[in-house]
Amino acid sequence: MRPSKRNPDELRRVSIERAVSRHAEGSCLIKFGDTHVLCTASLEERVPPWLKGQGRGWVTAEYGMLPRSTTDRMRREVTVGHPSGRTQEIQRLIGRSLRAIVDLNKLGERQITVDCDVIQADGGTRTAAITGAWVALYDCIQWMKLRDMVKDDVLRDHVAAVSCGIYRGKPVLDLDYAEDSSADADSNFVMTGAGGIVEVQGTAETVAFSQDSFDQMMALARKGIGELVALQKLTVS
Amino acid sequence: MRPSKRNPDELRRVSIERAVSRHAEGSCLIKFGDTHVLCTASLEERVPPWLKGQGRGWVTAEYGMLPRSTTDRMRREVTVGHPSGRTQEIQRLIGRSLRAIVDLNKLGERQITVDCDVIQADGGTRTAAITGAWVALYDCIQWMKLRDMVKDDVLRDHVAAVSCGIYRGKPVLDLDYAEDSSADADSNFVMTGAGGIVEVQGTAETVAFSQDSFDQMMALARKGIGELVALQKLTVS
Amino acid sequence: MRPSKRNPDELRRVSIERAVSRHAEGSCLIKFGDTHVLCTASLEERVPPWLKGQGRGWVTAEYGMLPRSTTDRMRREVTVGHPSGRTQEIQRLIGRSLRAIVDLNKLGERQITVDCDVIQADGGTRTAAITGAWVALYDCIQWMKLRDMVKDDVLRDHVAAVSCGIYRGKPVLDLDYAEDSSADADSNFVMTGAGGIVEVQGTAETVAFSQDSFDQMMALARKGIGELVALQKLTVS
Amino acid sequence: MRPSKRNPDELRRVSIERAVSRHAEGSCLIKFGDTHVLCTASLEERVPPWLKGQGRGWVTAEYGMLPRSTTDRMRREVTVGHPSGRTQEIQRLIGRSLRAIVDLNKLGERQITVDCDVIQADGGTRTAAITGAWVALYDCIQWMKLRDMVKDDVLRDHVAAVSCGIYRGKPVLDLDYAEDSSADADSNFVMTGAGGIVEVQGTAETVAFSQDSFDQMMALARKGIGELVALQKLTVS
Amino acid sequence: MRPSKRNPDELRRVSIERAVSRHAEGSCLIKFGDTHVLCTASLEERVPPWLKGQGRGWVTAEYGMLPRSTTDRMRREVTVGHPSGRTQEIQRLIGRSLRAIVDLNKLGERQITVDCDVIQADGGTRTAAITGAWVALYDCIQWMKLRDMVKDDVLRDHVAAVSCGIYRGKPVLDLDYAEDSSADADSNFVMTGAGGIVEVQGTAETVAFSQDSFDQMMALARKGIGELVALQKLTVS
Amino acid sequence: MRPSKRNPDELRRVSIERAVSRHAEGSCLIKFGDTHVLCTASLEERVPPWLKGQGRGWVTAEYGMLPRSTTDRMRREVTVGHPSGRTQEIQRLIGRSLRAIVDLNKLGERQITVDCDVIQADGGTRTAAITGAWVALYDCIQWMKLRDMVKDDVLRDHVAAVSCGIYRGKPVLDLDYAEDSSADADSNFVMTGAGGIVEVQGTAETVAFSQDSFDQMMALARKGIGELVALQKLTVS
Repeated sequence: MRPSKRNPDELRRVSIERAVSRHAEGSCLIKFGDTHVLCTASLEERVPPWLKGQGRGWVTAEYGMLPRSTTDRMRREVTVGHPSGRTQEIQRLIGRSLRAIVDLNKLGERQITVDCDVIQADGGTRTAAITGAWVALYDCIQWMKLRDMVKDDVLRDHVAAVSCGIYRGKPVLDLDYAEDSSADADSNFVMTGAGGIVEVQGTAETVAFSQDSFDQMMALARKGIGELVALQKLTVS
Repeated sequence: MRPSKRNPDELRRVSIERAVSRHAEGSCLIKFGDTHVLCTASLEERVPPWLKGQGRGWVTAEYGMLPRSTTDRMRREVTVGHPSGRTQEIQRLIGRSLRAIVDLNKLGERQITVDCDVIQADGGTRTAAITGAWVALYDCIQWMKLRDMVKDDVLRDHVAAVSCGIYRGKPVLDLDYAEDSSADADSNFVMTGAGGIVEVQGTAETVAFSQDSFDQMMALARKGIGELVALQKLTVS
Repeated sequence: MRPSKRNPDELRRVSIERAVSRHAEGSCLIKFGDTHVLCTASLEERVPPWLKGQGRGWVTAEYGMLPRSTTDRMRREVTVGHPSGRTQEIQRLIGRSLRAIVDLNKLGERQITVDCDVIQADGGTRTAAITGAWVALYDCIQWMKLRDMVKDDVLRDHVAAVSCGIYRGKPVLDLDYAEDSSADADSNFVMTGAGGIVEVQGTAETVAFSQDSFDQMMALARKGIGELVALQKLTVS
Repeated sequence: MRPSKRNPDELRRVSIERAVSRHAEGSCLIKFGDTHVLCTASLEERVPPWLKGQGRGWVTAEYGMLPRSTTDRMRREVTVGHPSGRTQEIQRLIGRSLRAIVDLNKLGERQITVDCDVIQADGGTRTAAITGAWVALYDCIQWMKLRDMVKDDVLRDHVAAVSCGIYRGKPVLDLDYAEDSSADADSNFVMTGAGGIVEVQGTAETVAFSQDSFDQMMALARKGIGELVALQKLTVS
Repeated sequence: MRPSKRNPDELRRVSIERAVSRHAEGSCLIKFGDTHVLCTASLEERVPPWLKGQGRGWVTAEYGMLPRSTTDRMRREVTVGHPSGRTQEIQRLIGRSLRAIVDLNKLGERQITVDCDVIQADGGTRTAAITGAWVALYDCIQWMKLRDMVKDDVLRDHVAAVSCGIYRGKPVLDLDYAEDSSADADSNFVMTGAGGIVEVQGTAETVAFSQDSFDQMMALARKGIGELVALQKLTVS
Repeated sequence: MRPSKRNPDELRRVSIERAVSRHAEGSCLIKFGDTHVLCTASLEERVPPWLKGQGRGWVTAEYGMLPRSTTDRMRREVTVGHPSGRTQEIQRLIGRSLRAIVDLNKLGERQITVDCDVIQADGGTRTAAITGAWVALYDCIQWMKLRDMVKDDVLRDHVAAVSCGIYRGKPVLDLDYAEDSSADADSNFVMTGAGGIVEVQGTAETVAFSQDSFDQMMALARKGIGELVALQKLTVS
């Protein structure tokens, strides 16, 4: 029995609210249960130095947590002086996930930065961030289309993400914090709308897990991501 | 005529929503028009090293802006490596303002950190932060009272803040960004519910201003702060 | 009774010695009693990146304290790794104060940096720094005039500063360290030779203060700044 | 055809030389073809602060690259001021991999730090590092056994790692740099001697890959890790 | 012919003014011609962590330059974020020089920090700093003797320093900036009152120099340091 | 009697292995007994900003120690955040030593960076580094000659270095760690093949030493450097 009483293959209640920022070209507030992430997409007419003059664009992401988004207050990373290894891992993951479904050649020499800021955390912040980032990015590209800056086919597909774990010996979908902190294994999956795999990250927490467990988590993730993509479609329709 | 069509002595529409964070002991989302600040109060059973063993508590504040809270995206301060001078000025101001109305001796050896994070900015973020911080702090102290950790009189008074400026030669209350960026002078006032002065910060932007202009700004601020304190009372009643 | 036996409206003994640096275009050593600040103005044929190509100049300031300028030795800020919030507040204040009386358009694309380094501290270092910085700046502009780099009217006015406080319930002028550390309120005022207000910073240390107290401090400051401007005039005449 | 003419399921030539450091409790130089990593295990009679007093030990890892281990010289990370995101990701991965096969309760309140320093790089440095780190750790624990500091069963199993990728449309084992820089997908697998999965990291470089491709990479990895574990056994026998 | 018209074996005019700081236990302003260094000795009742509990004391030094002590304004080191290599070299040199003539066992568990801050620079700042630091240290120890904190023989000898160089092919004593910037070799010598060698640092600027040149510089230094020690004696008598 | 049983004027066993790096233009692994330093020379078609457009080149050096090159594991400098004073001193010394024997005008606008990384330390790492750096630099320049990038006479001479000390009252050549940690004086000498002096650094560890002791160390160094230069010649012949 999961602490939230969900079935093993059941997502938390997911909602996506668009256009929550007055300034950003695209934005949404995504909620996976009590995990709330604000995603904003910012367009800039510049690219990183190493891309200059090639006619191609860039999509990148940054990730942060408000100090009291967590059960106990965390120190601000600026106080520490540099982003933690965890923060860097997550923002690199979000950036790679988005670039997998964007045609950078069709973006022109521009950069879109998607900021994913966790307002409230209850497990699965990185997967909520990726799923919401797609919506912010979509709206940013719509904004550009309205101004004839890009053509229709910059965005090649959807991308969404979900976590799975082995909780009390059983594979389950979309871990919340209570499950995550006592799971034997924790995996994150990022897939496209067409079902292609973008990222797989599986980690044994205490002991190694079996091939079979891993395959079951992958199957649960495929189901969950299908539902998340369906919600993205509904949201932007 | 002000860009927002407000009268010279008219605040923006102000709203305060309490208990917006699942984890924090006290929290609110305060809006001064399009300026939105999330305030959370976090209680910790420790004090700074220099206060240890004295039986007194401490109240401090931290301030941040989400990267796309502003018209153009800002770099995260963690990327720069340390808080800007502006950030430090503001968080020191918020902390001093709160400590002016808290009886630290009655708090016990505990620290309350109020985090003020700007979700969306349109001028006056520091004054909105102070006004909201009081509500988060109030609720945190209520939380402590319910658990018999403190007595009734830890909080000695209200504290609230507002900005004034000389806009097109005329003193006006509660500058928004459009006014702030072209004002001749910019002042921030922090006062208690009883009308005592906690902080005054007046700055000439281009040329020095007269004693008379300053006195008029002070009078406008007094009126505005009175209204903000009234709203705080309504909110927590 | 003040520890220094001064009258409530009496400045400490103030002296300004010009041309104390062999290298700087303008310099002075200013003493407010036992507070000694070395001010040097350095001219550079460059402006900050955001000002380039506009034909305007820039005036900025930096502030530092020698490690044993204080009663107890302080750590060097370079050891900590970045300027403290206090240092940043003060150097921003000095810079704004100077820019209020300089015509940046007439300076040409050049930057003047005024360094204010506290050799010995006994309260009021920021107000001594501003008052001395004006003299260093004046001499730097004289140096430029002698070389036909600028015309007569770059400097529009004097600027000087003084602190006031509520000490044992009574407003007093120009706090020394003994007073400052036990004052109920502490205010810094920056005004021009013509009496215009450039900066006002009033802070309640423990409890809020009244409008009347604030007005009395402002009046004392006006008197003190008048005397400081008179001394500046005598010094550069 | 692979640039190195290897079969798709063929590892590079792998060698492990033990006891290469005069000072370290355990050490080896591992070579995966032209990728050379020096691994040293250092024993310290202390644990991280958050583990103190629990009677348990800790195993952690650090990773570095010499500036000219790469084709073009890299800047030293100390010059940048903090470890890159990539470095942090890799050292966290090595540490988790080792902890998965160590019984920390049986280590006592001690820390073993395994440093993995890349002397020469040609792709696959993190997988070579994990495979070599196990040998350094083994020898460190032997060193402890000789001194009766621990019992036989601290090390529960072997752990080794290898990369796989989709190169020119075909899954291949153990990517070298030439393959890695043009592969469509890049995955790292960490498994135990018993075949349990410790870590899986799969990343699409340009386009998403299929479930089938992923399963083939996993099978190749299982074969390669089997061979690496066999070599580890031979090395320490 | 030297730019300053001095003889090859002639020091600049040297003066030492004692007790220039109100707060420091010992202090002096030392001038080697236009090189002016403020030296303060600060006593603290603590030692570095690695010395705790051994009953011995420590003497250390820090070195800084005011931004406009030099011909062109330098950036403050705090702006860069850490002390330059040159600064660290110099402060380590000063510290070692002082420790060579102090009996740390007789100091008790206390630390004396000598801060050497260059107010104006014209070459030879490190040698002026060492020579002045001895005076500040002497006065600090006198201060301690007056309070019966230490006995007579803490200070075992004098220590002083001077530079020499090969200027236009000829060995000369006590380089000023004009000579230093075009010298072929630059050496710094630190010796005790008894003539013992504490530090020797010789550096070829463009081409290597001969044994004979080096020996001549050493002889000049011995003469100059003799005169500096005589001045120290006169100063503290 | 020396711990290593060497005669006072006897070097440790020294060996130099060339071409140890696949990527670097020049490289060697130099061993002074148990002190092992990897030296790589990296050619880049750029110069530091302050040298641009002058047609001259630059040679610089960086120095590092692997964390477990020492008896006890050291923290990585990147973890501390900046290079230690010792590291900066050493890399500046290596760079100056190399520049003393290179004709920078004949190098063209290019930079050669020699990285000296200590794989294992047993005293004398800086002198081994300089001696090995010359070989790496030589091979880098040979690499350039083969490609007609420079002419024959870029390298004007050999340069090598050795330490000497006063160990148990007696001058000895080439200190190992056991001697270094208990020596009364420690000196490093850098000389050219022709016998010119490039750098001299003599330091008294506890008490000052005599002129005679210093002269004896210098003579020992001259002998040892002669042998090291002979080995360099043999190595590159």
